[in-house]
Amino acid sequence: MASISLKAQQMPASAIRKLVPLSDAAKKQGVKVYHLNIGQPDITSPDCALEAVRNLKLRNVSYTNSAGLMELREGLVNKYYKGIGIDIEVPELIVTVAGSEGVNMALEIACNEGDEVIVLEPFYTNYNTFAFMNGINLKPIPTDIRKGFQVPDIELFEKAITDKTKAILICNPGNPCGTLYSKENMLAIGEIARKHDLFLISDEVYREFTYTEEPHFSAMNIPNLEQNVILVDSVSKRYNLCGVRIGCIVSHNKDVMTAAMKYAQARLCPPVLGQYAAIGALDTPQEYFREVKEEYIRRRDYMIDRLNSIPGVFTPRPMGAFYTIAELPVDDTEKFARWMLEEFRLNNETTMITPAASFYKTPGKGLDHARISYVLEVPEMVKALDCLEEGLKQYPGRTN
Amino acid sequence: MASISLKAQQMPASAIRKLVPLSDAAKKQGVKVYHLNIGQPDITSPDCALEAVRNLKLRNVSYTNSAGLMELREGLVNKYYKGIGIDIEVPELIVTVAGSEGVNMALEIACNEGDEVIVLEPFYTNYNTFAFMNGINLKPIPTDIRKGFQVPDIELFEKAITDKTKAILICNPGNPCGTLYSKENMLAIGEIARKHDLFLISDEVYREFTYTEEPHFSAMNIPNLEQNVILVDSVSKRYNLCGVRIGCIVSHNKDVMTAAMKYAQARLCPPVLGQYAAIGALDTPQEYFREVKEEYIRRRDYMIDRLNSIPGVFTPRPMGAFYTIAELPVDDTEKFARWMLEEFRLNNETTMITPAASFYKTPGKGLDHARISYVLEVPEMVKALDCLEEGLKQYPGRTN
Repeated sequence: MASISLKAQQMPASAIRKLVPLSDAAKKQGVKVYHLNIGQPDITSPDCALEAVRNLKLRNVSYTNSAGLMELREGLVNKYYKGIGIDIEVPELIVTVAGSEGVNMALEIACNEGDEVIVLEPFYTNYNTFAFMNGINLKPIPTDIRKGFQVPDIELFEKAITDKTKAILICNPGNPCGTLYSKENMLAIGEIARKHDLFLISDEVYREFTYTEEPHFSAMNIPNLEQNVILVDSVSKRYNLCGVRIGCIVSHNKDVMTAAMKYAQARLCPPVLGQYAAIGALDTPQEYFREVKEEYIRRRDYMIDRLNSIPGVFTPRPMGAFYTIAELPVDDTEKFARWMLEEFRLNNETTMITPAASFYKTPGKGLDHARISYVLEVPEMVKALDCLEEGLKQYPGRTN
Repeated sequence: MASISLKAQQMPASAIRKLVPLSDAAKKQGVKVYHLNIGQPDITSPDCALEAVRNLKLRNVSYTNSAGLMELREGLVNKYYKGIGIDIEVPELIVTVAGSEGVNMALEIACNEGDEVIVLEPFYTNYNTFAFMNGINLKPIPTDIRKGFQVPDIELFEKAITDKTKAILICNPGNPCGTLYSKENMLAIGEIARKHDLFLISDEVYREFTYTEEPHFSAMNIPNLEQNVILVDSVSKRYNLCGVRIGCIVSHNKDVMTAAMKYAQARLCPPVLGQYAAIGALDTPQEYFREVKEEYIRRRDYMIDRLNSIPGVFTPRPMGAFYTIAELPVDDTEKFARWMLEEFRLNNETTMITPAASFYKTPGKGLDHARISYVLEVPEMVKALDCLEEGLKQYPGRTN
């Protein structure tokens, strides 16, 4: 029997999705599972996006240009990015198969095998998967839950940089912490990238979800770093269109865009029906974002206050995205998450969370951390957190 | 200025798509360009596929399982594959982002860096791109245009196999040649794969387009090779849904499917709107395929007879897909293709073909070959071939 490659054997399985069979099993038993584990909001997509798909008059669904439909590229540049103060031209944007393809492309373009990329830990787990696939080493710089996972002293970046370092990869606002970086943070990171001539890969798919008065400061607007910044974006979260798989990669650096186009051509074109949904979404009224943001603030405030009211639990108050990392009084959040799905029931209900160790690369870190999403309506979250609180009381591996 | 990776620099650009700017420039001058260069049929998608999208009642487009919607997986297994005599279970099928992702995944799963994969030359140019991306070496076995690019003596496979060989990659019926392999061909290839315990990666995206009485013989039906075969498939060509970007990877080998799931999870899920189109397409009546096949036979017969009537041109009669490779009396088909787009006009029209050198890995091969698609209606093809014939008369680099 032919054996599969070492790489395919060693490739990390998705830590976020590996508990899904346990949750499926619980549901088969008739148990209601509250999903605080995924970044899958229950919020309605803008009408204009769904209407664009329902009204499609295509006779067949043919390939588009590998860079995406011109109408979408122009719309993103002129309707969306210009409107939020990111000044780019159409050739500086290629439509990707969501943010996932964008991050993967950016890493492939920035790094040779064996090169190093600096990330702030904890980080989105698939960054590690994409790095693994490309033979790239992520170099984590720790951040501190007690300090809200903020950008640490810039000295730590200096220490982490070696002659193999090719890029800094950030997610702002961040998955899994919900941390929002200030303009000052971004300028400081930019300064390091400039000094060492590193690429700054900036994943800004949660840009529309920020909960401060200060506007989001994009890496694209760091002065004198135009040739180093690669922006990764997506319509998934912005318009609650996770399934359409449409995003984009953006850079002022011509070599980057030429290379991105070669990767884009290898997969022929981005999903066309999703491109039409994204074109429709460009007409989303500001009202939509305002309402969605208010809803998330309500959810966040409930979630954070409730979590911190549970004995032994600590979580900072995130200023972006719809996740938080919470410290739980348990031996191992993966064991606890499994136990919640397999053993614990409150009125025949339970809650699913994501163990956070996979968001850390440093061994042993994050074992008592969980990523918790506030993607449910408050009344649902009340019940989800009732389960979590009761579960923490009863869990045999409780530590204090 | 940060410099991009060597791999990104050296990655081959799409030979099929690199002439597009010249064709765009011609169109801007008001010239009509006949596209015999792409595999983009003008044939209508089945109503049931497009209706499924128009009637979608989703309130938002959320992620699906990374392996695809269960309704689609079950439908493919029970409605499509069982119907054509391919007997598989649902866990043996994962929905991919079209055939492109399937081939890439199959190569990653079968091969470590530095491993070798045998292909019959000429082959689909992106096989080389995916191999390059994964550090895999394609080992081409030549086939002969005068023999209709048929599977050569099996001795040539034996000679090509080294201790680095991990797989044989075939496309049946084939892009770019339209060659259809007989059951005997497939059994012979299977025998070699079994003897050397190689994976057989079988790209069968053109399965529904065969023009013989004999039914298509899938690699999945080679006896005693269940653990070695990886099937790559797509709805792109079958239902004229190229843009939906939905395909699948299929194998009886559990290790292969476990690994495929890890790759699938890294990109979260396949495009959801396309998955609904593909679910709708499962109800396509047989009548549709019969009509499409008749139409392609009409087109092929016109195309092949006309090409062979042009002095100095030779092409075999393909029995599958909708391409042929033709030998043209020119110094270099890439120069000729450029000249056709930049210089030649007949009644303000011209024809675009794909130079075939990129379908060869052996240096210097295929320079006088072009891939020509019969994806236009006959009246359009008449005019396209009028241009080609006149162009060949006038081309300064004509060789005989």
